[in-house]
Amino acid sequence: MSPALILIDLQLAIDDPSWGRRNNLGAEANVGLLLDNWRHGNGPIVHVRHDSREPNSKYPPGQPLHAFKPGTAPLPGESVLSKTTCSAFLSADLAERVAGRSLVIAGVITNSSVESTLRSAGDLGFSVTLAHDACFTFGKRDWFGVERSADQVHGMTLANLHGEYCRVLTTSEILCAVETYSPSSPSLP
Amino acid sequence: MSPALILIDLQLAIDDPSWGRRNNLGAEANVGLLLDNWRHGNGPIVHVRHDSREPNSKYPPGQPLHAFKPGTAPLPGESVLSKTTCSAFLSADLAERVAGRSLVIAGVITNSSVESTLRSAGDLGFSVTLAHDACFTFGKRDWFGVERSADQVHGMTLANLHGEYCRVLTTSEILCAVETYSPSSPSLP
Repeated sequence: MSPALILIDLQLAIDDPSWGRRNNLGAEANVGLLLDNWRHGNGPIVHVRHDSREPNSKYPPGQPLHAFKPGTAPLPGESVLSKTTCSAFLSADLAERVAGRSLVIAGVITNSSVESTLRSAGDLGFSVTLAHDACFTFGKRDWFGVERSADQVHGMTLANLHGEYCRVLTTSEILCAVETYSPSSPSLP
Repeated sequence: MSPALILIDLQLAIDDPSWGRRNNLGAEANVGLLLDNWRHGNGPIVHVRHDSREPNSKYPPGQPLHAFKPGTAPLPGESVLSKTTCSAFLSADLAERVAGRSLVIAGVITNSSVESTLRSAGDLGFSVTLAHDACFTFGKRDWFGVERSADQVHGMTLANLHGEYCRVLTTSEILCAVETYSPSSPSLP
């Protein structure tokens, strides 16, 4: 079966300035490349949306920032999965929706919902690829008070995940790989 | 109900020199303090053990390094939970064993099985405390090739977890808190 593309929490709230400085300014363009490829013949697309129950969150359904970001939003008929947890596997039927498939994952933020979803996916036995340049995160202080840039936070998460829960590739590397079994590719010249 | 103490993967294999340089050399002593307190009147203790299915791992059952480390090993009658995944919730009945309780978690390694178990626990709705000085990890390179010390890896994980999935405290802070509701503490002077 062709792989499923799972996009995590690409909602307007992620552009709120309160998050601070992000990395990977080209992430949305890379998600667009993945979407375009999947829409032309690869496997299913699942748009995961965070539906927070926290009153102080920016993510409760009905809030203006809860909507999907334009440019990477689902088209009519594409699958939308609502979650209330960080891991998309722990509050929704994602495992059933993508059973038997390998997974390509992208979205936000690298060290929270993306990482939790990936850790669950790996533990549940899925073969998972993370499109690292189609994700982004924000800088934060580590436990000892050292300021870490968004790239440093991102880089630590990728190192924790690669080889243990998934493989980490660029969008281009993923598209080169999936094109070998895209239904739109001729099998003979 | 009194909190459950969950100890992760404290097996001989974690002392193998191939892991490299660790942090928190006092972690086992702190686990000992937690164990001593729980054995004198707090809630249940669950010793989680990694039973790998990977042939090249040090953790398959029957291998000499698979055994629990002396000093923090279960006593006869204490609960042992076997897992094959990083999160102790995704390959075992841990959620049922500790249903309705808050959790105190310690063990190894901070950024792998401890972190995955904590992320699952938080997502599953448990109130979780991580005893950060009763855990340890090892240095590694981040995704961009920068060498990170064990403390740096540890500190990034704690920052990702604290406030999002759990609260992060020292062993002493936890013992001060649990003593307020230990059955061995008198309710009146």
